[in-house]
Amino acid sequence: MSDLYQKSLELHRKHQGKLGTTSLVSVTSKEELSLAYSPGVGAVSQAIADDTSTNNQAARDMTLAGRTVAIISDGSAVLGLGNIGPYAALPVMEGKALLIKEFAGLDSFPLVINTQEPKEIITFVRQVAPTFSAINLEDITAPKCFEVEEALQDLGIPVFHDDQHGTAIVVSAALKNAAKVVGKQYSELKVGVIGSGAAGISVAKLLVGVDCMGPSCTLVPGLDRVAEVIVFDRSGAIYEGRSGLNTYKSAVAGVTNSKKLSGTPEECISGFDVVIGVSGPGSISQQVIRNMSENAIVCALANPTPEIMPEDAYAAGAKIVATGRSDFPNQINNVLAFPAIFKIAHELGLQKITTEVKLALVAAIADQVLEPTAEKIIPSPFEPNLVDTLTQQVIRRLKQ
Amino acid sequence: MSDLYQKSLELHRKHQGKLGTTSLVSVTSKEELSLAYSPGVGAVSQAIADDTSTNNQAARDMTLAGRTVAIISDGSAVLGLGNIGPYAALPVMEGKALLIKEFAGLDSFPLVINTQEPKEIITFVRQVAPTFSAINLEDITAPKCFEVEEALQDLGIPVFHDDQHGTAIVVSAALKNAAKVVGKQYSELKVGVIGSGAAGISVAKLLVGVDCMGPSCTLVPGLDRVAEVIVFDRSGAIYEGRSGLNTYKSAVAGVTNSKKLSGTPEECISGFDVVIGVSGPGSISQQVIRNMSENAIVCALANPTPEIMPEDAYAAGAKIVATGRSDFPNQINNVLAFPAIFKIAHELGLQKITTEVKLALVAAIADQVLEPTAEKIIPSPFEPNLVDTLTQQVIRRLKQ
Repeated sequence: MSDLYQKSLELHRKHQGKLGTTSLVSVTSKEELSLAYSPGVGAVSQAIADDTSTNNQAARDMTLAGRTVAIISDGSAVLGLGNIGPYAALPVMEGKALLIKEFAGLDSFPLVINTQEPKEIITFVRQVAPTFSAINLEDITAPKCFEVEEALQDLGIPVFHDDQHGTAIVVSAALKNAAKVVGKQYSELKVGVIGSGAAGISVAKLLVGVDCMGPSCTLVPGLDRVAEVIVFDRSGAIYEGRSGLNTYKSAVAGVTNSKKLSGTPEECISGFDVVIGVSGPGSISQQVIRNMSENAIVCALANPTPEIMPEDAYAAGAKIVATGRSDFPNQINNVLAFPAIFKIAHELGLQKITTEVKLALVAAIADQVLEPTAEKIIPSPFEPNLVDTLTQQVIRRLKQ
Repeated sequence: MSDLYQKSLELHRKHQGKLGTTSLVSVTSKEELSLAYSPGVGAVSQAIADDTSTNNQAARDMTLAGRTVAIISDGSAVLGLGNIGPYAALPVMEGKALLIKEFAGLDSFPLVINTQEPKEIITFVRQVAPTFSAINLEDITAPKCFEVEEALQDLGIPVFHDDQHGTAIVVSAALKNAAKVVGKQYSELKVGVIGSGAAGISVAKLLVGVDCMGPSCTLVPGLDRVAEVIVFDRSGAIYEGRSGLNTYKSAVAGVTNSKKLSGTPEECISGFDVVIGVSGPGSISQQVIRNMSENAIVCALANPTPEIMPEDAYAAGAKIVATGRSDFPNQINNVLAFPAIFKIAHELGLQKITTEVKLALVAAIADQVLEPTAEKIIPSPFEPNLVDTLTQQVIRRLKQ
């Protein structure tokens, strides 16, 4: 890993980062200057000032606000590094912007901010929103991330917290194909989710098909869902009425763990089909897997060190193991989801990313693997035209 | 003009604005992805987190925060259009970012914001500052612009309000050469400034060589300055102790109008050498020019309609007329100043743009016109390598 780290440091030093800005028009003469800038630009400003539509369509049509995704972070939960602040978060956000540009063809710009107060983050995003066509919230710690994202759903442009939903989408797609490999229906799966941060809560919500952000969740009829989910935090299984739950855990408790089980994963997910780790190294024991059903499906997503190493999971009886790492099979990588999400939102002019949209993308991602195997339950992000294909498939599904 | 406006609208629609984002590194394989993004980027984030220097040099070296200028506006005073808000301001800010990219080779990104409260603007800029290497404030109304700019001088990166200082720099450079054309010394000039907004106040300050932003101004010894300045607002000449002055006008009153004259421009600048209009159409009368010294120098900078049309100024006895327009000689265009200012700040690692830096740029711009004439007192922004040349000259001057 240290060679990779060294190369990455060199790459970042060489270019002073990864993302630049570029001119779309030429300004090499008085005439060109008078069109791109004063006085010609006055007509553009006036046309936008005259547009009274809620989201200012004129601004969308004639400025970068029609095609540019902001990547916003307070640096409070960056990679596995924790609360390292805005400066140290910037290379990650700049990378995310780069990936949206490269994979979805949309412009994107990172903004790291010098506050970690939820209300101030919300105010900041509201203030800067006229500049952008969509907002990707990133690496904001839970439960603050839920509050911030929920408060911004009325902005009129999509506000999407990738650490939650990107992970949930790719994990769900992986489970769809994993179920096929082990000869089960997705709707029959019983799933333990170990970890109740941004990713854990969101994975649980998407698996049970609830369309909610705030503290009250209800099942939406007609959505794809698995049979059962139990979420675990450090105190064990989360169930309705348990003490020590914040409002977001309570909301999830209301739609999961139907038998209100209490206890450890070893105790509670005996006979389950899937265990998902979104926690940290060591939090999935071999005993958990031994207690699960045959052909257990294990997603151990902590980076760089998974909750259980694949060889240990296989040794305990796992049939399929997915991790967040590129050096094992079945990498659960958000880059499969977020560029497509923003492309879909752009193409359809969405104002929100609903659970319906997320589940359509889950199905589209899963369908990219024509013949799933234990070593390939998820497509590679480098398959040609992947984002375009996913976008077209999601649009088709949503129009059905 | 309507043809120009139509063409500008078409240009903006065609490209959906003018500025895009672009990748500086390739991400077409797993290996490249692991260097630009996770896991490699973790080493970059860690190195930045470990850097305890005030301005985080590691972040400057390895992210776009080392090379990217923010163009920030609340849309409260856009072009001649007034308070048209953030959406309508965006094409101007996007244009400004484009010009910084094209003329100075620095990356730049516009942010238009949904608040016009000075304290909120200050908070916004403080919060977003870790993302950028410099801040250009733009089209923020006076006197709010003074308060905002002053409050942000401790950020550790340059915060520069171009409507004030860009105009002041280019006007001062124009006057240096105009003085040569009419055979006078810059230090002998008596100047009337009609208009006391952002540009008027800043032009007056730079002409008298004061290094201040807030409500207290004192003359700095050794700086270039003209002999006398009188600033006019709607109530007439501004003088120390006059009623109805805000703190910023009071500060300027303390370093201008040494005889404490009161009255109209016609009355007060009799015998003066220069009149500068930074106000609006009609605010420089032919009588003002008739009352001035022979070979009067007139800068009528309102756009698109100057304070007095050049033909009327010449008819009243003006020797040299400058405007903000490209279709007359002697265009006073801020694009001569702001790209160079940010380039100079970048090259020298400046944390503030001092009056000394501004005056060095004034001299460098003036020197670009080897043989000034009544029709050419200022260089064209399209002269080859202009920003590089100005930057090198300013650096040389500052090191003397």
